[in-house]
Amino acid sequence: MSLVVMKFGGTSVANVERIRNVAKRCAKVRREGHDVVVIVSAMSGETNRLLALAHEFGEVPDPREMDALAATGEQVTAALTALALQQEGVQARSLLGHQVRVLTDDAFTKARIRTIDGTKIGEVTKAGSVCVVAGFQGVDDHGNITTLGRGGSDTSAVAIAAAINADVCEIYTDVDGVYTTDPNVAPAARKIKHISYEEMLELASLGAKVLQIRSVEIAMKYGVPVHVRSSFSDAEGTIVTSEDKFSSADMERMTVAGVAYDKNEAKLTLRGVEDQPGVVAKIFSALADANISIDMIIQNVGTGGAGLTDVTFTVTKADLAHGKQVIGEVGPKVGMKELLVDDQVVKVSIVGLGMRSHAGIAAKMFQLLAAEGINIQAISTSEIKVSCLIAAKYTELAVRALHTGFGLDKTEVREE
Amino acid sequence: MSLVVMKFGGTSVANVERIRNVAKRCAKVRREGHDVVVIVSAMSGETNRLLALAHEFGEVPDPREMDALAATGEQVTAALTALALQQEGVQARSLLGHQVRVLTDDAFTKARIRTIDGTKIGEVTKAGSVCVVAGFQGVDDHGNITTLGRGGSDTSAVAIAAAINADVCEIYTDVDGVYTTDPNVAPAARKIKHISYEEMLELASLGAKVLQIRSVEIAMKYGVPVHVRSSFSDAEGTIVTSEDKFSSADMERMTVAGVAYDKNEAKLTLRGVEDQPGVVAKIFSALADANISIDMIIQNVGTGGAGLTDVTFTVTKADLAHGKQVIGEVGPKVGMKELLVDDQVVKVSIVGLGMRSHAGIAAKMFQLLAAEGINIQAISTSEIKVSCLIAAKYTELAVRALHTGFGLDKTEVREE
Repeated sequence: MSLVVMKFGGTSVANVERIRNVAKRCAKVRREGHDVVVIVSAMSGETNRLLALAHEFGEVPDPREMDALAATGEQVTAALTALALQQEGVQARSLLGHQVRVLTDDAFTKARIRTIDGTKIGEVTKAGSVCVVAGFQGVDDHGNITTLGRGGSDTSAVAIAAAINADVCEIYTDVDGVYTTDPNVAPAARKIKHISYEEMLELASLGAKVLQIRSVEIAMKYGVPVHVRSSFSDAEGTIVTSEDKFSSADMERMTVAGVAYDKNEAKLTLRGVEDQPGVVAKIFSALADANISIDMIIQNVGTGGAGLTDVTFTVTKADLAHGKQVIGEVGPKVGMKELLVDDQVVKVSIVGLGMRSHAGIAAKMFQLLAAEGINIQAISTSEIKVSCLIAAKYTELAVRALHTGFGLDKTEVREE
Repeated sequence: MSLVVMKFGGTSVANVERIRNVAKRCAKVRREGHDVVVIVSAMSGETNRLLALAHEFGEVPDPREMDALAATGEQVTAALTALALQQEGVQARSLLGHQVRVLTDDAFTKARIRTIDGTKIGEVTKAGSVCVVAGFQGVDDHGNITTLGRGGSDTSAVAIAAAINADVCEIYTDVDGVYTTDPNVAPAARKIKHISYEEMLELASLGAKVLQIRSVEIAMKYGVPVHVRSSFSDAEGTIVTSEDKFSSADMERMTVAGVAYDKNEAKLTLRGVEDQPGVVAKIFSALADANISIDMIIQNVGTGGAGLTDVTFTVTKADLAHGKQVIGEVGPKVGMKELLVDDQVVKVSIVGLGMRSHAGIAAKMFQLLAAEGINIQAISTSEIKVSCLIAAKYTELAVRALHTGFGLDKTEVREE
């Protein structure tokens, strides 16, 4: 008998029929004798519907109220899933973020988890019930409802799995695992059987929308095995775990594990700011104070005239309006002449543990893009990935060229 | 400067545009210098939508989960109303039932308020914000979400008004006050300017859907003046207050203040139960244990054979399925031969303080109904009302006959 966390995303609970299927699946595991904790997202489309309502009342609505609003999506699904489990003849009980107590900071709309109290969940499972927890939501020190940001239910699931010391955290989603790239873009994409936390982290942060980045960080930190699989089939999906658990079995792994792309970036360029110590710090401190995460940063020293420089950076599209507002305030103080905004950009990336021991991978990436006539606007690298910012119109072309170029194309039909 | 509680029902917050109007109205009061606490219901239709979802998972879904589900309706409206107020340039902050702390018992789907802590609301108003409270919801001792039952937002509003010692509790609704009867049924109905708690209590409990009965009980107990008025006009509505505050100014009041009808009743008849001491107690104890409220009760002694009797009672239609289930269990234990159910009944009632000092009012009611050929199935009376259960098909006929017969018809067009 083991303790299993099962997390279902928005498409898996999109309507009554699918919630029924989720309940059947969880009931089966429960009847096999396991303790089951279920984490659910809002029905797909619901969070967008709620946030659209909020935006009827201003471009940048009060984030505290946004969270009180958005948290209702998961609350609805949690209650319905508990009811569906009861209909399957299984005892069940829903818990909300503040009932569990998922304690977060007060960074509304993108709160970070501080601690999770496993007591209440333990009481529910000990009493023989499946515990259905509303994902995505928490509560701050003052009892305010918070949410963890987009995809936060994955984070809830893995963090709860860590808090209750679960044997595995199963993430059920609308795809049957992690692929070498988006199959919609490159039909030759293959499903990956095992992937390391590190690689998954890079893939997640680069826009492979299967798992939220923070959930992978937490899984890695606490050593929670994560199984990404389809809620519509019984097929094994992709196991995300530590490198040492699978590398010996996978001698044939490619140098590059996957190709990712992220359309959710926007580029801001501050033209002609003063080229003096402290100026860049002033800009990015203002953004940090506003809780806006920066991805790529490029400073073009010496352009735009004597003593002046251009500063370019990327943020998520969701932060663009807020970011423009912050720069509108801080820009004039550092002599900014002009603010250029480009949201027609995409970041394509290659990821793989093998890069550590193989030289020339980045150079090969640049060559493959150049061969298709694609201009690179910015580059960033880590130990196991290389990312390039390019014009959004080249997305599919770039992804396919890299997937083929690095030998990732599916060569045979396999039953997996 | 006064402290004003303003409560808006489902039709008043049915969509974004109406929430905007609610915000404008509250903002105006706030800018006049008053402290404002707003109580909101779910958008109209939303609670029904949520409960219909729950009923997809069984005829009698777990009430605890029903409440977690239903409470989201008011949570959405509270957050949106706070955002709308902010857009009007007024500071605002939403609070949920468990945040205020509206402590209730654990009778899910029809919980009763135990205590309300006014501290948090006080903090919000003291900080200069309008406090927007989600109506209808509370929390029990164990942190479970509870709801107060249909129309519970009125109860929330009046109870909060009492807890924070508000000067007035304004109930905004889709009608512009309390009428002598339903104007849809009797076009000659008139708006009542002042009504006593006692009369309002009888009218509310008899199905005049303007105010929930418990809200009037609480208003009476704590002496909270209630102003029922339209959210779509500035006209004065109906003031509900203690008798001594208005009787001298209203010498012309009719003996009967209003005619009410309630279609939300269903009649259950247990045929041929044992006519012995303790039998009736057994039946109604079982119903009480199941938290089912009984309205009228008739025991026909000696019918149905020697030593047998019939027991008839009415419950709300919402409790009918549950009631049938309870009787299905307890009935055989008291020798019940047959259970008859009739949900095609209506209760019509006349209400008025003047009845105390006028004899023959009940007799006149029976005559007026008899004159229309309407058979009376059950009768119940109190000091200031008389109710008759009749076949539902006679509803309109009966209401109009009583309204005219007791001299309530409008005789002139008045601007009020």
